[in-house]
Amino acid sequence: MLQTITSIEDIKQRIKTFKENQFSIGFVPTMGALHEGHLSLVRQARKENDKVVVSIFVNPLQFGINEDFTQYPSTFDNDCELLSKEDVDIVFNPKAPEIYPDGFCTSVVLEHLEDKLCGKSRPGHFRGVAAVVLKLFNLVKPDVAYFGQKDFQQTIVIKRMVADLNLDVNIKVLPTIRGKEGLALSSRNAYLSETEKKDALCLYKSLIKAQTMVNAGVKNAEEIKGEMGKIINNCKSAKIDYISIVNPKTLEAVSEVRSGNVAALAVRIGKTRLIDNIILMVLIVLFVYST
Amino acid sequence: MLQTITSIEDIKQRIKTFKENQFSIGFVPTMGALHEGHLSLVRQARKENDKVVVSIFVNPLQFGINEDFTQYPSTFDNDCELLSKEDVDIVFNPKAPEIYPDGFCTSVVLEHLEDKLCGKSRPGHFRGVAAVVLKLFNLVKPDVAYFGQKDFQQTIVIKRMVADLNLDVNIKVLPTIRGKEGLALSSRNAYLSETEKKDALCLYKSLIKAQTMVNAGVKNAEEIKGEMGKIINNCKSAKIDYISIVNPKTLEAVSEVRSGNVAALAVRIGKTRLIDNIILMVLIVLFVYST
Repeated sequence: MLQTITSIEDIKQRIKTFKENQFSIGFVPTMGALHEGHLSLVRQARKENDKVVVSIFVNPLQFGINEDFTQYPSTFDNDCELLSKEDVDIVFNPKAPEIYPDGFCTSVVLEHLEDKLCGKSRPGHFRGVAAVVLKLFNLVKPDVAYFGQKDFQQTIVIKRMVADLNLDVNIKVLPTIRGKEGLALSSRNAYLSETEKKDALCLYKSLIKAQTMVNAGVKNAEEIKGEMGKIINNCKSAKIDYISIVNPKTLEAVSEVRSGNVAALAVRIGKTRLIDNIILMVLIVLFVYST
Repeated sequence: MLQTITSIEDIKQRIKTFKENQFSIGFVPTMGALHEGHLSLVRQARKENDKVVVSIFVNPLQFGINEDFTQYPSTFDNDCELLSKEDVDIVFNPKAPEIYPDGFCTSVVLEHLEDKLCGKSRPGHFRGVAAVVLKLFNLVKPDVAYFGQKDFQQTIVIKRMVADLNLDVNIKVLPTIRGKEGLALSSRNAYLSETEKKDALCLYKSLIKAQTMVNAGVKNAEEIKGEMGKIINNCKSAKIDYISIVNPKTLEAVSEVRSGNVAALAVRIGKTRLIDNIILMVLIVLFVYST
């Protein structure tokens, strides 16, 4: 039976009871407007834990002043219905003043990670993410927290924060869930017109192009990014924010592609900023000589 | 029996056992070179908790490049002897690479609190303090952590961080312990010559002057700071870093003194930077009319 909790006092009390009963806790932090991407995380959490907590909180701290905080899609009743069907125990849905009371002034800054990729065009975004996730971890005290690969930089920032601050939480990152034609599911897809949804496929196409080139033995990152850019630029409503191929630990751009490097991009389709990424796998061909 | 632990893995394991046994944990974070100020915290922790953990870690992150990190006094064997006498359970004494491994990049920033008072002449100091205290809290998981009022701004930064990040630790601040003539105990007093120790009394004298003026009905902060400054400047080896009277929540300077405001100062005596403070109490005179 899904229970909705809105206050910090109540969530603390509930978690205390879970802990006293030695229940393991799986946690999926979200901003609501849930889709199959979120639900894949929830299902994994359900499989692996005694109790599942999902937070729905549109975190003002991670939006820039000209971003879409005020129009971010909200479908709370539908979200609860979905979570109920997945047998989630608690949805934590606090209001902003509960999370950020008067006088709040603590930021969590991950130097070298927060200013790259999306951080360049969204300054302050990742300190907002880090602060709210840290607070939610401290409140929910999960054994495992689940994140989607779609928000690649977010997963790196959070894994680093967990290691750096010695937090007792296991971070699991699950694959991006895509529509039939490859568009990565995102709450922001709700902003797209039907034409834009088709245009938005260029992100996935460019990622597939990157992997195809790597499969064909191309290692030069500039060459790959060039071809990715062509695919995006062929689409009239698309405007590149960035295309990068990076080391997934440091988020530094690489010049020669190795297995495990990540091709990531952000593209505006009309007014909507979309992100996507792929982990590039370099095929290793083994020659076996029989003697 | 005092146990020395140096690795993160070992302290985590030990704390896990404490928690499984539902022992309450009192924690005193220090940089070693222990004196009666530290010991007053340890004794209080001993009184109030099942287990007492003291950390000794000279935190490189909270020292500026031209500060005294390399010569900070170290008296580890003597410290352990003292802690043993106080019946402390664990001294956690990690090396810096254990606390800050390669790739560490997380800072905890308390805007509006970190750049005032000592933060002005020690940029980065309080983010270093906040980061290490947060890490130690996450490792030691104390019920109560004990700090000295001498490090006034540190206590405010930590209390704010604990509230902002929803940490489950109770912060207790105990009074400054002073020498016979009023000098606040500090590990850095070890740097002072005999003459300088006498000169250093000007800090306490100026604080007493502030309280005396408040007792006499003076409310004008500038007037009080002026008189405090005169006392410091009368001492030839003393050089004022700052003299402030502040609201203890916001650390903003006040112009009219109210009960609970804090007079704080930092003064160089020769090459040694000393700090001290006093909570100013405005006397309330009650007139009782008998009818």
